[in-house]
Amino acid sequence: MRIYAESIAAAYGHTGPPPYNGRVDVSDIGEFGLIERLAKAVGAGRPESLIVGIGDDAAAWRLNDAVMLATTDTLVEGVHFLPGRTPWVDLGWKALAVNVSDIAAMGGLPQYALVTLALPPQTAVPDVDALYEGLGQCAREYGVAVAGGDVVRAPQIAITVAVLGQAEVDGEGSPLLMRRDAARVGYVIAVTGTLGDSAAGLRRLKDGAPADDPLVRAHLRPRPPLAAARRAAELGVPCAIDVSDGLLQDLGHVCEMSGLGAVVRAAALPLSGELRDAYPEEALALACTGGEDYELVFVAPRETLEALRPEVTMIGEMVEDGERRARLVDASGEEVRLPAAGWDHLRPDGRPSGRT
Amino acid sequence: MRIYAESIAAAYGHTGPPPYNGRVDVSDIGEFGLIERLAKAVGAGRPESLIVGIGDDAAAWRLNDAVMLATTDTLVEGVHFLPGRTPWVDLGWKALAVNVSDIAAMGGLPQYALVTLALPPQTAVPDVDALYEGLGQCAREYGVAVAGGDVVRAPQIAITVAVLGQAEVDGEGSPLLMRRDAARVGYVIAVTGTLGDSAAGLRRLKDGAPADDPLVRAHLRPRPPLAAARRAAELGVPCAIDVSDGLLQDLGHVCEMSGLGAVVRAAALPLSGELRDAYPEEALALACTGGEDYELVFVAPRETLEALRPEVTMIGEMVEDGERRARLVDASGEEVRLPAAGWDHLRPDGRPSGRT
Repeated sequence: MRIYAESIAAAYGHTGPPPYNGRVDVSDIGEFGLIERLAKAVGAGRPESLIVGIGDDAAAWRLNDAVMLATTDTLVEGVHFLPGRTPWVDLGWKALAVNVSDIAAMGGLPQYALVTLALPPQTAVPDVDALYEGLGQCAREYGVAVAGGDVVRAPQIAITVAVLGQAEVDGEGSPLLMRRDAARVGYVIAVTGTLGDSAAGLRRLKDGAPADDPLVRAHLRPRPPLAAARRAAELGVPCAIDVSDGLLQDLGHVCEMSGLGAVVRAAALPLSGELRDAYPEEALALACTGGEDYELVFVAPRETLEALRPEVTMIGEMVEDGERRARLVDASGEEVRLPAAGWDHLRPDGRPSGRT
Repeated sequence: MRIYAESIAAAYGHTGPPPYNGRVDVSDIGEFGLIERLAKAVGAGRPESLIVGIGDDAAAWRLNDAVMLATTDTLVEGVHFLPGRTPWVDLGWKALAVNVSDIAAMGGLPQYALVTLALPPQTAVPDVDALYEGLGQCAREYGVAVAGGDVVRAPQIAITVAVLGQAEVDGEGSPLLMRRDAARVGYVIAVTGTLGDSAAGLRRLKDGAPADDPLVRAHLRPRPPLAAARRAAELGVPCAIDVSDGLLQDLGHVCEMSGLGAVVRAAALPLSGELRDAYPEEALALACTGGEDYELVFVAPRETLEALRPEVTMIGEMVEDGERRARLVDASGEEVRLPAAGWDHLRPDGRPSGRT
């Protein structure tokens, strides 16, 4: 399961500290702390058939000769999208696409979706129809069947989608899964597409840019590279993660779970011309910490990744590192400090809870 | 997928009409109308492997020789539970139990759960720990493994759980599923346990009754009869639904999808002594329209249901009925009118959108 830390939560005005009340709040331990507590509370009784549980992009378990995948993600109004600024049709697309991204990050094929819609009763029906339309567009694009739907009343809009899928198995029946804990020293880090466009698009959306602006499109209509992910899994890429919270924070999860560090060369990062033109000073920071790119990071031996060119760009490598951090370095190998390395949207300052 | 119409939404104060704004709101067409629109918007491209899509307790599809089941349900603060009154540990239990109920209603075995927690940042950590504890208790009770977790920030608490499971297949590979559309004229209607206790318990909870009051327990800790459901599916019971929105409304879904009517004998309804003692005048109405019982209704030939005694009580039968309604009748066969037959929590008056 991906831990959905909205990387640009600060942009939505949710970074002020909660009122002091003399107790330990979830904002103090952050969402990663909460996920760990959940894993502990329910950890007993883990069945033998479970291959990957809490803490990866998706859960995986064996079912006879097949390997099932399941993931879920929620978009909450005012936390994950801008009320009144995000077109409903794009919201529908994105609610499904972020889940497709999780299945892709495991190397799997998304097949079925369950959709839970929380709505205030005064929501206009044409808006809901537009949301369904966007959902249907994404479902057709990625070959996903919406098999179930639920509607509940709530004070604000929230869309929760669960996607079920399958991973391939090799000739000996071993699952071809890309896991966060499978990076090794010397493995190369590669990424699909370009980074930072989505975060830049959110900024432009807030500034009133139209929905057809290319950067705004990148924000509203993420297109997870499912075909590349499937090829990567078939080629034997052992480790991947999707870029949802910002490259450095997401790579930080790989570092934490693989017990290693990551070195990313700033000069190697793929940045679009639109991003460089729109935010020349901040392009690098947006690419490293902006989040919501829904591109994929692959971590594998160099020769394996060569076969994925030109769809991927090699940006760094895994190293020994007791701190298990992802570091951005310049041409001379010096660490580049950025203002923020991803956001943890439950913490009062929006800073991550220590994994990056 | 069960359509989660909180049968006692009115009790939470959510029945006032929305402000008039000169357009069609979701409160005008109701949640069942919305689910139908979703089914239409995404209906194209239904894969051959899909056995049951939108509109039943859970989705079902073929995977090689197996039949997968998936369902999801959400509990929203102030809509599905009382803020400050519902103990967190019970909330955790119930969030999973209502999904186990959906899988049971299909005759399947629940196996894996994904948990999405939407929390305000100032939620106290011990409260979340208690929620996880209740979730873990329910998971152990029903043999479900929590395989994924997600935490998002939101203005109010909401817990969405998706449960994945499997249905049995018979010797010829046909799935042993209990479907809403499989009732036939002359089939007998039977129900597990007793009805109305949960709705009575909610009332007592609001009146300040302690969490260990038997009726309050029934409300806070529903115990879906999974073992009985599994036996029913093995015996070949073709049709079932869980009692979430109130017996008559839920039977109404069976009527609608099977193209029939249902006749329920008031005198045959199983009512607990606690319910009769606490609300002698309203026991019948609570049993028929209260909801959240999470018992199961089985619809099958009488001889099939006989084998499930004493775990089920026979309460009526399916009949021809152009109106496709579930009717409550007295000893002389006259229809008994009740104040409300289930609630549709998106409609301003809380009344169902026409299926009962």
